[in-house]
Amino acid sequence: MSTFNVELKKIVDDSYEIEIGYELERKLIHDLKNGLAGEIHKFAVVTDSIVKGLYADKILAMLQEAGYQADLFVFKEGEKQKTRKTKEEIEDAMLAKGYRRDCCIIAVGGGVVTDLAGFVAGTFGRGVPFINYATTLLAAADASVGGKTAVDTPLATNLIGLFNQPEKVYLDIATWRTLPERQVISGLAETIKHACLADHDFFDYLNEHIEDILALDREVCEQIAEKNCKIKYEVVMKDERESGLREILNLGHTVGRAIETVSGYELLHGEAVSIGMAAEVKLAYRLGYMTAKERDEVIALLVKAKLPVAIPAGINRDDLVKKLYTDKKVRNGKLRFVIQKGIGDIVEFEKGVFATPIEESVAREIIMDL
Amino acid sequence: MSTFNVELKKIVDDSYEIEIGYELERKLIHDLKNGLAGEIHKFAVVTDSIVKGLYADKILAMLQEAGYQADLFVFKEGEKQKTRKTKEEIEDAMLAKGYRRDCCIIAVGGGVVTDLAGFVAGTFGRGVPFINYATTLLAAADASVGGKTAVDTPLATNLIGLFNQPEKVYLDIATWRTLPERQVISGLAETIKHACLADHDFFDYLNEHIEDILALDREVCEQIAEKNCKIKYEVVMKDERESGLREILNLGHTVGRAIETVSGYELLHGEAVSIGMAAEVKLAYRLGYMTAKERDEVIALLVKAKLPVAIPAGINRDDLVKKLYTDKKVRNGKLRFVIQKGIGDIVEFEKGVFATPIEESVAREIIMDL
Repeated sequence: MSTFNVELKKIVDDSYEIEIGYELERKLIHDLKNGLAGEIHKFAVVTDSIVKGLYADKILAMLQEAGYQADLFVFKEGEKQKTRKTKEEIEDAMLAKGYRRDCCIIAVGGGVVTDLAGFVAGTFGRGVPFINYATTLLAAADASVGGKTAVDTPLATNLIGLFNQPEKVYLDIATWRTLPERQVISGLAETIKHACLADHDFFDYLNEHIEDILALDREVCEQIAEKNCKIKYEVVMKDERESGLREILNLGHTVGRAIETVSGYELLHGEAVSIGMAAEVKLAYRLGYMTAKERDEVIALLVKAKLPVAIPAGINRDDLVKKLYTDKKVRNGKLRFVIQKGIGDIVEFEKGVFATPIEESVAREIIMDL
Repeated sequence: MSTFNVELKKIVDDSYEIEIGYELERKLIHDLKNGLAGEIHKFAVVTDSIVKGLYADKILAMLQEAGYQADLFVFKEGEKQKTRKTKEEIEDAMLAKGYRRDCCIIAVGGGVVTDLAGFVAGTFGRGVPFINYATTLLAAADASVGGKTAVDTPLATNLIGLFNQPEKVYLDIATWRTLPERQVISGLAETIKHACLADHDFFDYLNEHIEDILALDREVCEQIAEKNCKIKYEVVMKDERESGLREILNLGHTVGRAIETVSGYELLHGEAVSIGMAAEVKLAYRLGYMTAKERDEVIALLVKAKLPVAIPAGINRDDLVKKLYTDKKVRNGKLRFVIQKGIGDIVEFEKGVFATPIEESVAREIIMDL
């Protein structure tokens, strides 16, 4: 018998830049020419059927004009397509077009596109670089910081995936103008969540400017894009692997993700999170961590943003309670929730522990009332 | 316009231990009790339909006896099963049994099992730990060091996967006794490859002891298991991401993998690599990097090990030439080969460059003659 030690200790630098601005397509090409993707000359532009005509075709043409080899890989839009099957189709199409390890993926779209393309990049040839060109508020709030990539499965959302950091993220505010209002509103849920868990002043700012945001005022939009990145970054920085602190980003998501799945993805992610936020402030109030006034303020802001705060008709509440158990935070078969503390803070139950076990009966009551 | 820097520089320690010995099942349980997998109490034992009855059932029972929650996830044996579909089936079965992020995967089997289970572990809940309990010589030679995990696709082998390091690797020499002789022989191809590229003395040792290995002499087997790990480790250590030096492990694989695919996986991996080695020493001789005597010595050792050195009937050589282009080393549409230098060394074409472009016409001639 003998043993052999494989020593693999090293310094990894996954740092990257987020650029927030208006019409950043030319900047992307400029950055590539200046070495953003190193020596790579082959770009797989991954996008969905809506963003294709709006922005991806244009970026593809600009890449080709700049002398790069570039191809478009398009899948049907919608969270329902964020599956292993779509991932496989993109992979096979890339392989068929001769893409190997010497390529870079450019994701052009919202959170579904960046989640999926980042996951494809992470396992294609055991990992190729990728760049996110984000075209939605949700992507600014959610998908630009944290390195989370994933697909959904019939049993749960986002449970198959990777932590994978992009080379750079572009948040093009100009693209928000082509979003359906429902998508803008949906994106606001994560923004409100960020305010709730980390920043009372930002909550007040949102309360004041919600109409400006819905009107896509450029300055206000840049402000909230940047603030979203900052809040998420501060959480993620301290806990890249989601062992403790990072769980606070799950606020509203325990109930939210379950609703999203049970609705068959009829609800947009942000809409489901909004309903989840409403459920979870009620839970926080019940546990004594929020006053009735604070609870009502959060719900009022969600309503002001035109987000739903009640479970829509047609959703079976018993199915919803069952679905809670597919949550990533479940441990030893027990539901665990992140709990908001007032507005702009989160309960730390013990050092580094930000989620607490909740009896199913309690969760059930909240859901039955919602 | 504003930019925001996401700083993600950190020290990562992926070090692990390889234990080489006889009947290591109890040692595995002992290590788990001593914290090998931290606080984890839930183990997904992934294995194939052959290894199940031989070793995995036993390990499962021992885990359960030790008070752990453990379940078996079995797929049909064979390289043909190393697909995204099998990965998906294991994931869905694990999800259905309530497995989430708080589990550890134990791969029990040969290279196909460890490749597949390591890939499942890398993307399940965005990454759970895994342990390899390797039951073949090939796994000792190939799958125990390097962190490569992958599946095959219709278009190419091992192109979808991850670099993912296990918590620990067990090489149980006792298990080799239940391998069909064809599998033992197949495993020897990677061992001979290691000798060819790094160690003339080891080449001589193999030449002397080939019968002892085929008779599974315990001491000789432990020696070659350890030597395989050491040679591979020294290469991998210096180049974890396979940018330069690590490509030398591709010796024999440019042609070998293409044959493996074109044969529809009728050839075992090692058999295909052996034919690839024979092709590639002929190429090295033609380019002036090996003498005729050295070339013949390598081919003679492969033959002595009962490995094939010619393309079997029924394989279309034109298809084979075409298939070469799916190799990961292809760059800008050009075939690239690693070239052996004498016995025990590799050609370094320029600093850090260990693969050289080869005209298709040259590759074709070698293949037509094989």
